Amino acid sequence: KRSYTITLLPGDGIGPEVISVAKDVLLLAGSLEGIKYEFQEKLLGGAALDATGVPLPEDTLSSAKQSDAVLLGAIGGYKWDKNEKQLKPETGLLQLREGLKVFANLRPATVFPQLVHASTLKPEVAEGVDLMVVRELTGGIYFGKPRGFGTNEDGEETGYNTEIYAAHEIDRIARYAFEVARKRNGKLCSVDKANVLEASMFWRKRVLALAQEYPDIELSHMYVDNAAMQLIRNPKQFDTIVTNNIFGDILSDEASMITGSIGMLPSASLGDSGPGLFEPIHGSAPDIAGQDKANPFATVLSAAMLLRYGLGEDKAAERIENAVLDTLNRGFRTGDIYSSGTKLVGCKQLGEEILKSV
Amino acid sequence: KRSYTITLLPGDGIGPEVISVAKDVLLLAGSLEGIKYEFQEKLLGGAALDATGVPLPEDTLSSAKQSDAVLLGAIGGYKWDKNEKQLKPETGLLQLREGLKVFANLRPATVFPQLVHASTLKPEVAEGVDLMVVRELTGGIYFGKPRGFGTNEDGEETGYNTEIYAAHEIDRIARYAFEVARKRNGKLCSVDKANVLEASMFWRKRVLALAQEYPDIELSHMYVDNAAMQLIRNPKQFDTIVTNNIFGDILSDEASMITGSIGMLPSASLGDSGPGLFEPIHGSAPDIAGQDKANPFATVLSAAMLLRYGLGEDKAAERIENAVLDTLNRGFRTGDIYSSGTKLVGCKQLGEEILKSV
Ligand SMILES: CC(C)[C@H](C(=O)O)[C@@H](O)C(=O)O
Ligand SMILES: CC(C)[C@H](C(=O)O)[C@@H](O)C(=O)O
Repeated sequence: KRSYTITLLPGDGIGPEVISVAKDVLLLAGSLEGIKYEFQEKLLGGAALDATGVPLPEDTLSSAKQSDAVLLGAIGGYKWDKNEKQLKPETGLLQLREGLKVFANLRPATVFPQLVHASTLKPEVAEGVDLMVVRELTGGIYFGKPRGFGTNEDGEETGYNTEIYAAHEIDRIARYAFEVARKRNGKLCSVDKANVLEASMFWRKRVLALAQEYPDIELSHMYVDNAAMQLIRNPKQFDTIVTNNIFGDILSDEASMITGSIGMLPSASLGDSGPGLFEPIHGSAPDIAGQDKANPFATVLSAAMLLRYGLGEDKAAERIENAVLDTLNRGFRTGDIYSSGTKLVGCKQLGEEILKSV
Repeated sequence: KRSYTITLLPGDGIGPEVISVAKDVLLLAGSLEGIKYEFQEKLLGGAALDATGVPLPEDTLSSAKQSDAVLLGAIGGYKWDKNEKQLKPETGLLQLREGLKVFANLRPATVFPQLVHASTLKPEVAEGVDLMVVRELTGGIYFGKPRGFGTNEDGEETGYNTEIYAAHEIDRIARYAFEVARKRNGKLCSVDKANVLEASMFWRKRVLALAQEYPDIELSHMYVDNAAMQLIRNPKQFDTIVTNNIFGDILSDEASMITGSIGMLPSASLGDSGPGLFEPIHGSAPDIAGQDKANPFATVLSAAMLLRYGLGEDKAAERIENAVLDTLNRGFRTGDIYSSGTKLVGCKQLGEEILKSV
């Protein structure tokens, strides 16, 4: 099958601008490799709230479920920040992840040689960083019950959440991470807080048990506070990191900032079967929305991940990855990664330059 | 009252070495300011486990409770890493924090001009960083119940913890942080994950309500993943940060690594009344224990915090703080902060040099 249905979710803020570029790039790289697409553009997040009153309309979820892959721009914005939980853009994203059962979130943090200077870390610390955070995405404190607001024995108001992992949830993400590490440099670091939390002790126990099936992988364990330090002290020590939903949220963002160019970083969220969800790791950047200033590289690279991990179309993926490198080498930059001597362009023009390189 | 009872808890690893230096410094600075001490040395952590079978012996807790302040070295080590929860060194520390009701953990991250080069961040990003993390220390997921191991509806094993905050727990730490910010530069950033977690939504609501009492403080809110990024992108944007127990654990360690010299950083844990607990933020470093290589500065600066925040003895505190700066200026360094052109010394000799500067 060389014809795919792709659900596009532009979302909010700069989402529509970067999705528009990524769509054009997908089309061109696809046509050169004999791939056809049917695109379905749907609403998610604040855009969906404004139009339909809910952050994930049923129509969006069913389209996503029936497609071969889902490409998302970004969601959220000040406008909806004070909404109650069910009416937050973020809730729509969490419902989508849950609905698609994409439990494995792959977040590469790669320093592009052309952009080393953009990191706030010293060049000798940042250059060559190439790590992958494998974050558990559909469990833990994000989804655990009970959760909510209550009253304690003393009649006082409370707010609470539950961090909980069942055996199979840990096993499947750990397996996934062992496999990823095997395709990379064979090193896996499992991050937890097993010196304090039972959920982490259980996590570590299951990861250790699985390790027997992966004798070729060098497994280590690190407490989350130490991992937050080590990422700054010496990020090159890491190859593949596996961790829970909330620690993965924090550490993958920290790792991405180490690269200095979060406008370059894609992500993939995958399940056992069914469509994967692909999105840049940056947010919706409402302050620059609609101004043609957004950096579309991360979304274009998410489209490459979509082809590679979502559709198994490695050749088309490579075309896009090479086009990104070529465009960087030809000196084109959006404002977030601009440095003197390079060519400052807007989102649209950068898109056209990428197309020339595909 | 100018005579104080101090409980000393050397703990494990390099703990005894750094406590020994800090004790001498306390004594000298005290005698020059007319202060007398009675020191009570007690067991905590692995040392206590080996000697008594529990990580916090009753004798230690009651001594700590009856003293005017508690100075701790460090706890933990590979030896006890696989112990079950009740027999972990860390559990002793958590019980001590709970027993002393020290809900406010102050963790400064200060870049010493003499040590800017030690940071992995570019000098222009690191220099001048001077922020304070106010971490909630006796609540949240560290202490929340229910917690443990169980079986879910599908008969599967689980591990779980509860993140829970009651109104008064948030109010008292937020008040504390507003007061700290007032004594600093008047900026407070409250870090949470209110776009996902009810515990965080409740946190933000209480902090916002309290803000009315502190119109002079510039309050902002940041999601924890973004805070993890911003600390790397531009740490100077922060003055005072307030956050929950687990986010504070992660972010304060991240902030400390930004300074490049975690061997320099003290911490204070304080309650409404009763003795405070003072400790360096670094760990027990079992790999260099007993080799006279430990950096005692952080524990010496913790002793200064003890004098200032624990006993209200500002003059003696200042003596110690100035002695640390003077010793740095005279070029003495332990291995962790050594650079060419400075004088490499061991823990003991550095202690003697600090004494000369007191
Ligand atoms: C928007 C938010 C719910 C989301 C998360 O916390 O998972 C985001 O921070 C991310 O990492 O994709
Ligand atoms: C040792 C551990 C229990 C402790 C914590 O997590 O609080 C430590 O990391 C700290 O930050 O003081």
